[in-house]
Amino acid sequence: MGTMVPDTRNFDAILGAIANEVTPLFGEGNVASYIPALARIAPDQFGIALRTADGREYAAGSARTPFSIQSISKVFTLSLAMQQVGESLWDRIGREPSGDPYNSLVQLEREQGVPRNPFINAGAIAVADRLVTRFSDPKREVLRFVSELCDQEVSYDEEVAASEARTGFRNIALANFIKSFGKLDNPVEQVLDLYFHQCALSLSCLQLARACTYLCQDGRNSLRGEQVLSDRQARRVNALMLTCGTYDAAGEFAFRIGMPSKSGVGGGIIAVLPDRLSLCVWSPGLGSSGNSIAGMRALELFVEKTRLSVF
Amino acid sequence: MGTMVPDTRNFDAILGAIANEVTPLFGEGNVASYIPALARIAPDQFGIALRTADGREYAAGSARTPFSIQSISKVFTLSLAMQQVGESLWDRIGREPSGDPYNSLVQLEREQGVPRNPFINAGAIAVADRLVTRFSDPKREVLRFVSELCDQEVSYDEEVAASEARTGFRNIALANFIKSFGKLDNPVEQVLDLYFHQCALSLSCLQLARACTYLCQDGRNSLRGEQVLSDRQARRVNALMLTCGTYDAAGEFAFRIGMPSKSGVGGGIIAVLPDRLSLCVWSPGLGSSGNSIAGMRALELFVEKTRLSVF
Amino acid sequence: MGTMVPDTRNFDAILGAIANEVTPLFGEGNVASYIPALARIAPDQFGIALRTADGREYAAGSARTPFSIQSISKVFTLSLAMQQVGESLWDRIGREPSGDPYNSLVQLEREQGVPRNPFINAGAIAVADRLVTRFSDPKREVLRFVSELCDQEVSYDEEVAASEARTGFRNIALANFIKSFGKLDNPVEQVLDLYFHQCALSLSCLQLARACTYLCQDGRNSLRGEQVLSDRQARRVNALMLTCGTYDAAGEFAFRIGMPSKSGVGGGIIAVLPDRLSLCVWSPGLGSSGNSIAGMRALELFVEKTRLSVF
Amino acid sequence: MGTMVPDTRNFDAILGAIANEVTPLFGEGNVASYIPALARIAPDQFGIALRTADGREYAAGSARTPFSIQSISKVFTLSLAMQQVGESLWDRIGREPSGDPYNSLVQLEREQGVPRNPFINAGAIAVADRLVTRFSDPKREVLRFVSELCDQEVSYDEEVAASEARTGFRNIALANFIKSFGKLDNPVEQVLDLYFHQCALSLSCLQLARACTYLCQDGRNSLRGEQVLSDRQARRVNALMLTCGTYDAAGEFAFRIGMPSKSGVGGGIIAVLPDRLSLCVWSPGLGSSGNSIAGMRALELFVEKTRLSVF
Repeated sequence: MGTMVPDTRNFDAILGAIANEVTPLFGEGNVASYIPALARIAPDQFGIALRTADGREYAAGSARTPFSIQSISKVFTLSLAMQQVGESLWDRIGREPSGDPYNSLVQLEREQGVPRNPFINAGAIAVADRLVTRFSDPKREVLRFVSELCDQEVSYDEEVAASEARTGFRNIALANFIKSFGKLDNPVEQVLDLYFHQCALSLSCLQLARACTYLCQDGRNSLRGEQVLSDRQARRVNALMLTCGTYDAAGEFAFRIGMPSKSGVGGGIIAVLPDRLSLCVWSPGLGSSGNSIAGMRALELFVEKTRLSVF
Repeated sequence: MGTMVPDTRNFDAILGAIANEVTPLFGEGNVASYIPALARIAPDQFGIALRTADGREYAAGSARTPFSIQSISKVFTLSLAMQQVGESLWDRIGREPSGDPYNSLVQLEREQGVPRNPFINAGAIAVADRLVTRFSDPKREVLRFVSELCDQEVSYDEEVAASEARTGFRNIALANFIKSFGKLDNPVEQVLDLYFHQCALSLSCLQLARACTYLCQDGRNSLRGEQVLSDRQARRVNALMLTCGTYDAAGEFAFRIGMPSKSGVGGGIIAVLPDRLSLCVWSPGLGSSGNSIAGMRALELFVEKTRLSVF
Repeated sequence: MGTMVPDTRNFDAILGAIANEVTPLFGEGNVASYIPALARIAPDQFGIALRTADGREYAAGSARTPFSIQSISKVFTLSLAMQQVGESLWDRIGREPSGDPYNSLVQLEREQGVPRNPFINAGAIAVADRLVTRFSDPKREVLRFVSELCDQEVSYDEEVAASEARTGFRNIALANFIKSFGKLDNPVEQVLDLYFHQCALSLSCLQLARACTYLCQDGRNSLRGEQVLSDRQARRVNALMLTCGTYDAAGEFAFRIGMPSKSGVGGGIIAVLPDRLSLCVWSPGLGSSGNSIAGMRALELFVEKTRLSVF
Repeated sequence: MGTMVPDTRNFDAILGAIANEVTPLFGEGNVASYIPALARIAPDQFGIALRTADGREYAAGSARTPFSIQSISKVFTLSLAMQQVGESLWDRIGREPSGDPYNSLVQLEREQGVPRNPFINAGAIAVADRLVTRFSDPKREVLRFVSELCDQEVSYDEEVAASEARTGFRNIALANFIKSFGKLDNPVEQVLDLYFHQCALSLSCLQLARACTYLCQDGRNSLRGEQVLSDRQARRVNALMLTCGTYDAAGEFAFRIGMPSKSGVGGGIIAVLPDRLSLCVWSPGLGSSGNSIAGMRALELFVEKTRLSVF
């Protein structure tokens, strides 16, 4: 980390080829169905966008179609909390891979209400609790933060947020469970209101590739020239994404793709190559691990074609 | 990966400074005591060695003192098995972080005798089973493989191996447990004989830094000019080291150090920076996570001083 | 079961002696503190009451002081549900001891939202769900049922119920968790409203000894001459009480006391000797297993003095 | 307990009717196949025997055919250890139902090598360890103890014992696991030699009904007029059988049968009605819970026909 590495690859051709090659995967897997507002999405969509550290942008497919970013939002709320709260953030959140499913309560019980890491649901709820404490209008602040990251106004999909609030029983269980250990400072309803909204953020692949630029440039957002996190903090977010970012397939991701990544059940996946580029793929059909099938394949093709990887 | 990056840092000064700075940590932590032969080691020792991708070597402290490499051997037996067995190796071994302690039986029970990854004890025992099937004299082959990796004759510490065999009840339990699921092809005694010997390999920091050179050079051992693994395989070993290499502190390691690493209860830790360098630190005092305290601090200082990290 | 056994023991003397002997235990243990309304109870109270199968009643200490029956209510809602719902009740509730704490979520996750038995909190919540489905005013029906069992008007302590609703995060988590598996038919709020109220029932030892008379008389309530359950059903409730009735101390209870029993964190314990008698002890100070310390000792003394036990 | 209750039921007719009614169940379930010596048993066999507290005996079917008693032996080794070791026996063995399968290692890991109760395999191995410490020839002592209980010479089936020793990997794992926590005093091999032999005891239904007479007569063996255990100890064994005696179906057993029982994978089940009778059923076909299908049905029919039960 530190030195920006210019890259002369023909990314236009590479992204186009990838978009082409993943077409046969459309229709495989299942669109997330646990909330009605997500279950309606047409499955045969795919987008990919990339932004290099020196500011060039590339895209293919439906790279400008907004989708529900879901768990990808955990990267942004974590970053905002690291920026605002500092080291005490980690008093109630671990940094280890969980080995259990992303929405498991087992680990929480064993470890007395301290989530294993900020990228499982329980961890993101604990992060949200800190933001609720920190801000008088936390939803507005998260919206502002993400909008600034991609240098464009973004918005919550209120229908998705309402749908999560009505049917997200597992997350309600998680939040109450943490609360029962005395490890949530704010009322469950307020914390979940923020959490359900952050999951309901709508962004496109291109916006997400832009939003992640601070993760491949030592914490600095090059679109607005702002230092979002210190270089050390940015490195830490990347480390967490690599070890814990893709549900219970983090090992498989590191193994097959080798880039810090974070996926969401909306079908999006962001990935970062420190000092080089950030990218985002999207396709709604999910595999058994909860990750986009075409999206994972696209990232794998990207690594094969560019031979880029942190390893 | 792919391009070798020359490095002009003054590693001599850096390693010397590190060796100096970790001195106050001597005596912290505890020497591994679960086998008598390890419990006798003097705790106030420290070594560090580094080999760059272009073949320069640096060392400080007791970098030439052989020590019991213990779990570091899992990297080498895994590599040998990947080379010899190919993809079918993964039929009975997962690639995900475990979230449970390195010698846990819980996960094995839940997943019917398939260890989560090759770096927990159960996984390494499953790897050993494949090597026992593959070779008529597996102990000799492992010795040959590791000797060639560091281009020097190395040996087993038979006293340590015998000590493990006498008192390694947890590992005997693990092997029999896997066997009870029908997922060990060879007699438990034979498999454990290999496993206890590989843990009892004696190497110095310098030998280990050399032995790992294939992991930062696309699978190629530059000392002997041999392709040990394909570049894709070498990348996979690195990915596994980063996500699963340091007991239940893999997240913390990625977070604080950001290099694929593998530690052993003998106090050694190897670490790799793809395309740049491999290094090894050693100090016998272990922290609660089973990793060398001075060794972890040394790696952290190395990252601080060089700003090198995969993230 | 079947033949009523007349008993000529001098229960007056026995209960009086027990009340005397447990006095030194006052002040040991802790009053349940997880809800403020319970934490206020004076700890140095003790009551014991007994009703024989042939209708004689005996009492000592504060046997007429009403207390919060808490989990003892699970016996009554289970009985009401068995009476009203029949065998389909068991579709979503197991009948095995859990081996995990009474408010654990671990087992629920492993078994996909099916509680191990009706006496852990999750199981009682699943029972409450069936009663909410069955009755238009389930709280009134439970009140009526329990009032008829002891042949006296009893009531909910609304302050305790409100206190549970405000702070019972673990139970809210449990109910939402079951709901997330699709195994709760009614809204979580309605189900918990019943559950929090049943726990807040106020009865005295004497009322509880009377209320349990159907469990030692083949399902027949002798106060009102009504068949509450079939003899087979009554036997089943007794079996469940013996194997699962006293939190994670059911084995210890069977071992030391040998009577089907059900305890509550209000400090009450009911116990039944089929064909002979039902009894109830109460003292607010709880031991580490969540059972009344003086209450358990009183039951043990009762067995020692009378040599009565199902074993 | 205490008063012997004479029983005027026509047990001859009842046992005969039961033997008749369970015939259609022959062939259901599976003969235990984990060791070859058991897998060979013809499945369509059934026996039942009963001995009343006043010494009358009844039998039907193959009540005199010896079979491998397997886990039923745990009742006898526990009783012998209680007799010989006293209360300190419980230092390393719990008394609670486990909620996990009978051969689970999970609970052992959570509770640091202390088995939940003496009737899961781990618990019986811990009991065996105490007997190995106590006796210079523990196998001979167990044989003597069981022979005296049924007042007939019985023997080990050495072929079964050898078969267990060769293939009982799960039990070898359990013993080594306990040893790894420092909670086995003797060498694993010695402890397992006793354990594998006790499981290989061969007794008939009639012999087992006799052997259990001390459990329904306050600890006194009426065949030889010897006090085997104190009445309190006998009551405790019964309590343990009821709560933990039938693998993970103890709740179901208490619920449907309501007698302290202990089953074995050889297809035998012993059951006790304190003060009244002991009985034994046998049929090799096992259901999913590891209990004999025809045997469980026979016990259920017995309760239906006699209306006898502790509840």
